[in-house]
Amino acid sequence: MDIKAHIQQIAQQAKAAAEKMRENTAEARQSALFMMADQISAQSNAILAANAKDIEQGKANQLSPALLDRLSLTPARIDAMVTGMREIAKQPDPIGSIRALHTVPSGFKVGKMRTPIGVIGIIYESRPNVTADAAAICLKSGNACILRGGSEAFHSNQAIIHCIQTALANSALDNHIIQYIDTTDRQAVNEMLNAVGLIDVVIPRGGKGLVKVISEQAKIPVIKHLDGICHVYIDEYADSDKAIAVAFNAKTYRYGICGAMETLLVHQKQQDQVLPTLIDKFHAAGVSLVADAATAQSFGLMTADEIDWHTEYLDAKLSIRVVNDIDTAIQHINTYGSHHTDAIVTEHIGQQNQFLNRVDSASVMVNTPTCFADGFEYGLGAEIGISTDKLHVRGPVGVADLTTEKYIILGNGETR
Amino acid sequence: MDIKAHIQQIAQQAKAAAEKMRENTAEARQSALFMMADQISAQSNAILAANAKDIEQGKANQLSPALLDRLSLTPARIDAMVTGMREIAKQPDPIGSIRALHTVPSGFKVGKMRTPIGVIGIIYESRPNVTADAAAICLKSGNACILRGGSEAFHSNQAIIHCIQTALANSALDNHIIQYIDTTDRQAVNEMLNAVGLIDVVIPRGGKGLVKVISEQAKIPVIKHLDGICHVYIDEYADSDKAIAVAFNAKTYRYGICGAMETLLVHQKQQDQVLPTLIDKFHAAGVSLVADAATAQSFGLMTADEIDWHTEYLDAKLSIRVVNDIDTAIQHINTYGSHHTDAIVTEHIGQQNQFLNRVDSASVMVNTPTCFADGFEYGLGAEIGISTDKLHVRGPVGVADLTTEKYIILGNGETR
Repeated sequence: MDIKAHIQQIAQQAKAAAEKMRENTAEARQSALFMMADQISAQSNAILAANAKDIEQGKANQLSPALLDRLSLTPARIDAMVTGMREIAKQPDPIGSIRALHTVPSGFKVGKMRTPIGVIGIIYESRPNVTADAAAICLKSGNACILRGGSEAFHSNQAIIHCIQTALANSALDNHIIQYIDTTDRQAVNEMLNAVGLIDVVIPRGGKGLVKVISEQAKIPVIKHLDGICHVYIDEYADSDKAIAVAFNAKTYRYGICGAMETLLVHQKQQDQVLPTLIDKFHAAGVSLVADAATAQSFGLMTADEIDWHTEYLDAKLSIRVVNDIDTAIQHINTYGSHHTDAIVTEHIGQQNQFLNRVDSASVMVNTPTCFADGFEYGLGAEIGISTDKLHVRGPVGVADLTTEKYIILGNGETR
Repeated sequence: MDIKAHIQQIAQQAKAAAEKMRENTAEARQSALFMMADQISAQSNAILAANAKDIEQGKANQLSPALLDRLSLTPARIDAMVTGMREIAKQPDPIGSIRALHTVPSGFKVGKMRTPIGVIGIIYESRPNVTADAAAICLKSGNACILRGGSEAFHSNQAIIHCIQTALANSALDNHIIQYIDTTDRQAVNEMLNAVGLIDVVIPRGGKGLVKVISEQAKIPVIKHLDGICHVYIDEYADSDKAIAVAFNAKTYRYGICGAMETLLVHQKQQDQVLPTLIDKFHAAGVSLVADAATAQSFGLMTADEIDWHTEYLDAKLSIRVVNDIDTAIQHINTYGSHHTDAIVTEHIGQQNQFLNRVDSASVMVNTPTCFADGFEYGLGAEIGISTDKLHVRGPVGVADLTTEKYIILGNGETR
């Protein structure tokens, strides 16, 4: 197969479909989404059978138990996919809303109108539910999408796409509005990343390796999610009980999520009130601890290396540093953090405001564990990742974040 | 000089200054801007003298008259720079505003807070006023900036930067918040484009060649302005007099601006009412015309080549196409246009809405000449270019567009 020509054709079909989509109504998009959810629900046995093939092949290929778990579908997981799709369908439609329309001195009106971005490429790894989530979020936001899933989920993804295509065929929409790349050849990804003028943005969803390679190679814009090196800072003016609860939850809710706390910063005046209890609780939970030299000595812990402050453990390990003041805490976060999610525990408004203003992260939290960094928790309804970029969108990426605004100018024949 | 080390140092200083800036108040930024304007005003003779050196050198290097005009400063142009800076200073401060703060089911509040992007690199060509404009827009939006102007304006830029630095030294701000790259070595640009993690975004301001090279080579995000292939479509339901006024103005206000109309699309039912008058007026103004084969024959014009539809003339030349319907007009614009600015002339609400929804351009206009595409006309007060990108910002880029939003989460010890 000529992969380059194949991807070009898919991208051109997507672009044409995205243009036609601008003529479709919000109702047409919503009803297509409900039909897709119905199809997935009705064909769940076929999807489970396809998934069984992937699992069998995955076992033969000796995939790790964690990967097999991410790959595996159950009736409950299919239900969650269907429910998620329906929830996205029910969200308010973001397209066409106009804001800030005002008359300027030259006599015409200027405002901003929300529109789809155009064509979105999603490149992801083993979870087959991303196929349904990504399709739904892109469609709700009025975009065409080109999906490229991991080869290990090939049969599952094909089965889900079959449901989506069946629904599209019965809808008012162009069936190229959602396309799946049906080759596992890696060149297909390269061609997507080079489709300047056809694909408007690519979103990688997966491990650090995938994201790094894609953002280095892409000639088109990328919305990306790098590390989640998240901090909780227990301030001088923290309520100690609250601080213990927040810090313990931030680490132990789930070790493997990007919002898990990786470094705990403690103001020196709080250390004797919070650290003995926290250290006991962490040890009891099986969390191994490293700390700056002085703290390690005081509390009988291992000493942290410079590299620890830079590390996203994603595991039952935590680094602890005692700091002299909030300045040092903020500097530590801005230097070693990944600008993902960082929290302060304090009862002091001035300290809260300093932290909110000066910490340069996508989510900045007060008295809240970092593990809450999540599009569902923020009320987005669904997310297609958590952006650690600074332009366009930071934090959880929802339906509205896959749109853009154009200027509209409404005049009556004014001239210059 | 070790250019790489030099640029790294400048970028690190900028990053540190940007972090300190988050502690400064809106008042401190505003007062620094007023002081800069005062300095430029007070030292206008020194700036004119420096500019005279550049002009002399430019003449010796046989720069074109157009380039010498862009390069040259006059007392009136310096006044405009000073006034512009004061206008930017007076604008409402965008930083720290919080929107959409609401309580979510888990109990905490989620909202979005506007923050500076961080460090902005501006790479520009001959106009020395960009030095003052860019510095002012970046400072007002709370960012650090690294300026790299054209070598032909070196002395003028140095004189302006000297005023800015003098003002900064007397202000509460870090003097590295605005830096100018004092080498004309082209490697400096490459090093800027590779400063991942230090410079957050680069904005090229200049000709197509500059923008293309920068967006191809940059490893950091670019906000860019490519072609302005702008269209006016005279709809079936247009008021013919209005259509003639809008189309004539869109072409002839100034040929060299990116908002100048390059292609005129006319509904077949309008051609006999508008084209004879328009052709006479364009010929009288010295505009040479090419048209699709049938129209060329009917009106005695030259025939347009395929390449004409793709061309940004920036000159007294116009291509004309008669179309059968609004669909063809929209398709023509989305296919051949550059997604910059396109206008419809119509009195019909349905046609207006179709055009607004379906034309995929940064500015979509109704009954308004495309030459109005301009940040000042839109009420932005100042602009640092016109973005033809789709992500982050489309159209004129003002102070607020050089900011971003982070999530803020205000809790009271909630846990998962």
